[in-house]
Amino acid sequence: MALSDDRLAAQMAFLVEADRLKSVLRATTLADGSRRENSGEHSWHLALYALVLADQAGPGVSIDRVVRMLILHDLVEIDVGDVPIHSADGHAHGSAAVLAAERAAAERIFGLLPPEQAAAFRALWEEFEAAETPDAVFAKSLDRVQPVMQNLASGGGTWTTYNVTAEQLESRVGVKIARGAPALWDWVRERTRSYFG
Amino acid sequence: MALSDDRLAAQMAFLVEADRLKSVLRATTLADGSRRENSGEHSWHLALYALVLADQAGPGVSIDRVVRMLILHDLVEIDVGDVPIHSADGHAHGSAAVLAAERAAAERIFGLLPPEQAAAFRALWEEFEAAETPDAVFAKSLDRVQPVMQNLASGGGTWTTYNVTAEQLESRVGVKIARGAPALWDWVRERTRSYFG
Ligand SMILES: [Ca+2]
Repeated sequence: MALSDDRLAAQMAFLVEADRLKSVLRATTLADGSRRENSGEHSWHLALYALVLADQAGPGVSIDRVVRMLILHDLVEIDVGDVPIHSADGHAHGSAAVLAAERAAAERIFGLLPPEQAAAFRALWEEFEAAETPDAVFAKSLDRVQPVMQNLASGGGTWTTYNVTAEQLESRVGVKIARGAPALWDWVRERTRSYFG
Repeated sequence: MALSDDRLAAQMAFLVEADRLKSVLRATTLADGSRRENSGEHSWHLALYALVLADQAGPGVSIDRVVRMLILHDLVEIDVGDVPIHSADGHAHGSAAVLAAERAAAERIFGLLPPEQAAAFRALWEEFEAAETPDAVFAKSLDRVQPVMQNLASGGGTWTTYNVTAEQLESRVGVKIARGAPALWDWVRERTRSYFG
């Protein structure tokens, strides 16, 4: 009883801490442009993308694992914040300093959970970050395509903010969407032409 | 090619429409009390609850199906809004008028998807609403326990707004948490005592 109470206390402390992801703001706005999107609602939207676009995934992809990954993938932002893809001329995202900070955040945040659960969540987050397994590659494609759809819906969004060109969109975003979901990028790129062209 | 383009167009229209759930406000606040929670980020939080609290589920529960259900469960609120559990002295939630409006919303919103996907999503939403299968019963328990945790974290929240008593909390909320996750309600009820006592 005491042991299972401690376990539940740890799990609830993690779930209350996770609430803070709803206050991390992204560069991207809602589809109607009314305000910036937060990373909690963004994570929900991505999970829904995975359910809806399941047939865009390559062979061997488990949509349920992709959904789990997407639910967890941004939790490190509670400590580190969101680093916009197009900020600092595309150089901030994935820098060594950001990666080290995200690793420390994963240690602290997943570390709130009971040990075996902390290890399992951390492993799923690292799999996402490494972007090597089919599940992680598809999850990354969705994480890259959703902001493009938000920008298309709101009439420019972060492309306007950061003066993004069609070539930058292709190299920073399109390549990664195409890696996990090539037909999806074909379809979306076609819709971005009128914006960039 | 034309057919698969139509399919993707329908799926993307659904995903852009779903974005509006991020603008549906609930009675509950964030854990820090800073603002009201929206139904998009709430749905994300519940999916995380399901992953973390999986061992509170009874036999025969598929956590991946529970997660899918929770991702979809509030989409009807895009048309109907959130109906707070404790509003109208507990009588608004689940009224015939609200249920009819939610059914019409499900028809419209899931109807944006390609037909076979619309049917599958709708069936999962109806399973959740009926609260009869083990997966739906557990999903409902999580949907009821998360606002309790938000209120505990923020120091009262909707209990203060609606003058809720310990007895009302038990009958409107506790019974449903206990149905799918009895040990969870035991633990949480214990923490609510100092608030109500
Ligand atoms: Ca709900």
